[in-house]
Amino acid sequence: MFTFIKDTQLEDLGAGVSRRILAHDGKMMGVQVNFEKGAIGPMHNHPHEQLTYVLSGEFEFTIGEETHRVTAGDTLYKEPHVMHGCVCLEAGTLLDTFTPVREDFLK
Amino acid sequence: MFTFIKDTQLEDLGAGVSRRILAHDGKMMGVQVNFEKGAIGPMHNHPHEQLTYVLSGEFEFTIGEETHRVTAGDTLYKEPHVMHGCVCLEAGTLLDTFTPVREDFLK
Repeated sequence: MFTFIKDTQLEDLGAGVSRRILAHDGKMMGVQVNFEKGAIGPMHNHPHEQLTYVLSGEFEFTIGEETHRVTAGDTLYKEPHVMHGCVCLEAGTLLDTFTPVREDFLK
Repeated sequence: MFTFIKDTQLEDLGAGVSRRILAHDGKMMGVQVNFEKGAIGPMHNHPHEQLTYVLSGEFEFTIGEETHRVTAGDTLYKEPHVMHGCVCLEAGTLLDTFTPVREDFLK
């Protein structure tokens, strides 16, 4: 399956955060999430595994009890049900890949 | 788990292709693959699901019977066992995410 970025839709989630649902099928889904400086990804958890690749910007990320600053090329693995969240220090974009698919994003 | 790009190792695969193993745990693995112009990812298949995000460059990609040119932001989902490969038209980098982990990459 090919998903061209020009054919995806940018969804404004409010508070300086927007996202695009990218290719998804089988047990995988790609999601691009844009953050303005100062925007927050509130602490939350879900049963899906998640791998986050920092495309650009700078973020302070918390996964469980661990907090670090991350920039382009850094990757974060989040196991099912682990609490995680971020604060955007410099405007940027994250690429999240989930398994299984986030059916809740498709409603 | 945090994996900082500065702590990863660039592995030269030859013929203009190199890669870095990024964060991997549970059922997920991230891998960054760099292609010089003209480098080829030969047609192959594997039992893992794969989601490819084009970070930069331009590629002609074949998945099964379908072939398209892709650039930054485009995403490609490859179901298990489907034949796929690419030709690099302009030097660039792909981000591959696999489920389950490519244990064969860790040997």
